[in-house]
Amino acid sequence: MELRQSAQEYEIPHQLTYYECNELGHPTLSMVMSMLSVVADEQSSKLGLNQETIQATGGTWVIASFEGTLDLHSLKIGDTVILGTRATGYNRFFATREFWLRDMDNQRQYAHIQSLLVFMNLTSRKIEQIPEKVIAPYRTPQVKKVSRGKRPQSIPQNAELSGRQYHVRYFDLDANRHVNNARYFDWLLDPLGEDFLTTHQLKSFSIQYHQEVRAAQDITSEFTLVEPGTSLHQIKNGDTLCTTAEFKWQLE
Amino acid sequence: MELRQSAQEYEIPHQLTYYECNELGHPTLSMVMSMLSVVADEQSSKLGLNQETIQATGGTWVIASFEGTLDLHSLKIGDTVILGTRATGYNRFFATREFWLRDMDNQRQYAHIQSLLVFMNLTSRKIEQIPEKVIAPYRTPQVKKVSRGKRPQSIPQNAELSGRQYHVRYFDLDANRHVNNARYFDWLLDPLGEDFLTTHQLKSFSIQYHQEVRAAQDITSEFTLVEPGTSLHQIKNGDTLCTTAEFKWQLE
Repeated sequence: MELRQSAQEYEIPHQLTYYECNELGHPTLSMVMSMLSVVADEQSSKLGLNQETIQATGGTWVIASFEGTLDLHSLKIGDTVILGTRATGYNRFFATREFWLRDMDNQRQYAHIQSLLVFMNLTSRKIEQIPEKVIAPYRTPQVKKVSRGKRPQSIPQNAELSGRQYHVRYFDLDANRHVNNARYFDWLLDPLGEDFLTTHQLKSFSIQYHQEVRAAQDITSEFTLVEPGTSLHQIKNGDTLCTTAEFKWQLE
Repeated sequence: MELRQSAQEYEIPHQLTYYECNELGHPTLSMVMSMLSVVADEQSSKLGLNQETIQATGGTWVIASFEGTLDLHSLKIGDTVILGTRATGYNRFFATREFWLRDMDNQRQYAHIQSLLVFMNLTSRKIEQIPEKVIAPYRTPQVKKVSRGKRPQSIPQNAELSGRQYHVRYFDLDANRHVNNARYFDWLLDPLGEDFLTTHQLKSFSIQYHQEVRAAQDITSEFTLVEPGTSLHQIKNGDTLCTTAEFKWQLE
């Protein structure tokens, strides 16, 4: 008989504050992604894998992509939710992690998100093999093929793009002196405008991080609406494509 | 013998997350102000004074100013702190509230802040007398003279100003469809730049709100350094002065 160790789940309760919510009183995607990354960091710390232990290997985790389904419109300021995560699998070069946001009674999920991670050498800035010691504590299954997730649709060549410029502010930087992956969602969604954002519910998304956005850069966030209910997005720094994303919407 | 009811304190514990902290791992002023306003809102709700009850009077509380002393550099991501507030006094037109951020053992204060509030009629947008029913539940002393607090020094006429433009983003708006008072601190401080902000500790501040900044506006945040360790700031929307502030700094 084969002995299987199951991957460890980690969950924390959280009460939604008004500054995590938008003008309609629902949590914003960037804040939900921030909260979920806190849960992953807490789990890692409890397993002895904090930023220092990991960087002592000469490398660091980098998020390559997220995809997920959402029902954030069913949540309001003051609601208490459960934030959870679990490492789901890995091979030599890729690891996957899932996240969820659910109610206290486990009757309803408000977000379910998959992420794909790679391990980057801090000196060469290149992707390297995942060191055993940074993955073993999660007791996650080693697999042959890791699901790369759904990629955002490409923006059609002749698409009409709308967009805005953003300056990366000092307060956009987190304690690793990086723009946190969650922050990109505000830049991606803001150009859609208040009229669109207050009349549409976000149902699902996928995002790919190609190049990091850095301190003090000026970036452009552009989008195009394709079939009704789908918006395709890109963030560029000059001619460099940094991020692509796809969002699916439903009229309120 | 006179019977005195003392004003009620309200405190909650809070663990600092990485997205409430800057690149040095210390909590940002805007996030601290957001957390403290949550504590005030919670206290009000528990006393039966939520946004709806208050607005049913035809008016709303407006923050006129804050001033305070700070030692946020002694705090780090992961620290658990106590956030507290108390209504401190009122007369016909003004009310005051104090806030604090302290350690669990009550040995140390990391922030102590006073605020001055007025009550605005929602139709005329003019200041009106504070209705008894929105202040009585706090059991705060009625006083003849309310301390207006320390005003920021005026920017000298011939001062050289540095600054940046900011666009008010959709995600800057809170559930009241206003830019929250805490949000202004990011606009005020960002133009100082990363070099200044990573080498100086914020020791005290005062801010006055003159005109509200609104959705989709383009604002200018400017500052000048006066005597060593003091910066004077203003936020303008075109020619309209919206906010003035003074910050005192100490070299790391």
